[in-house]
Amino acid sequence: VTTRDHGDPGDAPSTPPPLQKPVGSARPSAAEQASTIAAGGNAATLATLTADGDPWASYVAYGLLDGNPVLCLSNLAEHGRNLAADPRASLSIVAADGGTDPLASSRITLAGVVFQPAAGERDAVRTAYANAVPAARLFLDFSDFTLWVLSVQRVRWVGGYGRMDSATGEQYVAAAPDPVTPGAAGAIAHLNADHADALAAMVRAFGGYPDADAAVCSGIDRYGLDLRVDTPRGTAYARVGFPERLDSPDQLRLATVELARSAAAHRTAG
Amino acid sequence: VTTRDHGDPGDAPSTPPPLQKPVGSARPSAAEQASTIAAGGNAATLATLTADGDPWASYVAYGLLDGNPVLCLSNLAEHGRNLAADPRASLSIVAADGGTDPLASSRITLAGVVFQPAAGERDAVRTAYANAVPAARLFLDFSDFTLWVLSVQRVRWVGGYGRMDSATGEQYVAAAPDPVTPGAAGAIAHLNADHADALAAMVRAFGGYPDADAAVCSGIDRYGLDLRVDTPRGTAYARVGFPERLDSPDQLRLATVELARSAAAHRTAG
Repeated sequence: VTTRDHGDPGDAPSTPPPLQKPVGSARPSAAEQASTIAAGGNAATLATLTADGDPWASYVAYGLLDGNPVLCLSNLAEHGRNLAADPRASLSIVAADGGTDPLASSRITLAGVVFQPAAGERDAVRTAYANAVPAARLFLDFSDFTLWVLSVQRVRWVGGYGRMDSATGEQYVAAAPDPVTPGAAGAIAHLNADHADALAAMVRAFGGYPDADAAVCSGIDRYGLDLRVDTPRGTAYARVGFPERLDSPDQLRLATVELARSAAAHRTAG
Repeated sequence: VTTRDHGDPGDAPSTPPPLQKPVGSARPSAAEQASTIAAGGNAATLATLTADGDPWASYVAYGLLDGNPVLCLSNLAEHGRNLAADPRASLSIVAADGGTDPLASSRITLAGVVFQPAAGERDAVRTAYANAVPAARLFLDFSDFTLWVLSVQRVRWVGGYGRMDSATGEQYVAAAPDPVTPGAAGAIAHLNADHADALAAMVRAFGGYPDADAAVCSGIDRYGLDLRVDTPRGTAYARVGFPERLDSPDQLRLATVELARSAAAHRTAG
């Protein structure tokens, strides 16, 4: 993950560093983050090239086949004509996880070239699109619409402020979407409403902030929890990892209960 | 507005045509629609050109200065580097008015070239961005971020299924955002909940569908109402215009009451 010297004039907020090395701070890779974001939506913005080579941004619906986006575009529309003339394309997909601040949202760019599926692939491609875009029955079999598959060659992930990384197309296609993140909103709300003390204890024990006064969970994935932490030194952002990677949403409840128990035991032992 | 022959294989839904010429069916122009959509948001997807001339889609926040989008991008980020090397750009903005079907949403593409504001313009550009993007205080004055203005040369508007048109940059910049649309959700809900009979009467009298059994309002702008209509011939989409263009949201209530009265009188007279 890239960090930057921004030439900060000095009046921007800064975050206090951890006082201890965090324990178990594994995170999803950029390829995994991208896979999760792509699997979580069906609307994106496509960038194509006009006849003059200008960049053209247009809103599209998409499905996924083995991670590669599937589009169904009118041949009469500008983006359809653009792809027919030049297969280079990229797709920006935004996860609606940033609240009212668009720049706090996670988002990805998937870049590559499009192709029309061969006859033997066409049914699978068509089904991938129809499953993701229920309204596709309105136009999917119009003769002036074309199915396109974006072969992803390069991936950029931005996870809100200051978190970003790149991945290759191979890494992206090989990565699995996170099984825990899509259904985690209820667990996050429950932890924040009823287990705020346990969250603060986890951050003190394992998150690198023994001076944490309070912690709010802002995200959960198969590797752990993201937390916003109040300390006497200011607001920080911490990570608390699960002892083992989760492979199913069913494992989330037990894993967080065990983390809370370990944190309580850690405090007693300390 | 463009209409198309889609090479329909015959199994797609079709809509029954009006039986009478609609009365007062004025609509916002494409330039006005685009102005309203741009003014209603602060998040968009930017298309730029990479060093290889490939199209690059990336999520951005924006403000508006005299209708032209203002961006503030890191010079280290791919889109910032792209614009520094080639000023051609376009911006896709989506109005969240389509419910769960992304393709039912209204959206626009604003295409043109970016420039960095001259010293005398910089404060106005900076203020336009800061007003639209509250979180901009986090990075607006970092020395490695650059303010860009997109000089709009070409506009494409898509108003959901089958409604689309183009506008020039001059038409777009000269158009005013609709004063009624942004606050119309409450009025739409009220009309549908409490005045369904009046909506159906309006469509029978003025919307071209004297056989309307029921009508649901799906949108309101300064020129009139969009309605989804049940007829014995199937579901249709109708327009009922106000006698005069509205210039303020305060005028909406009286204008709809008068439309309902006129429709009731029309029925009695007929």
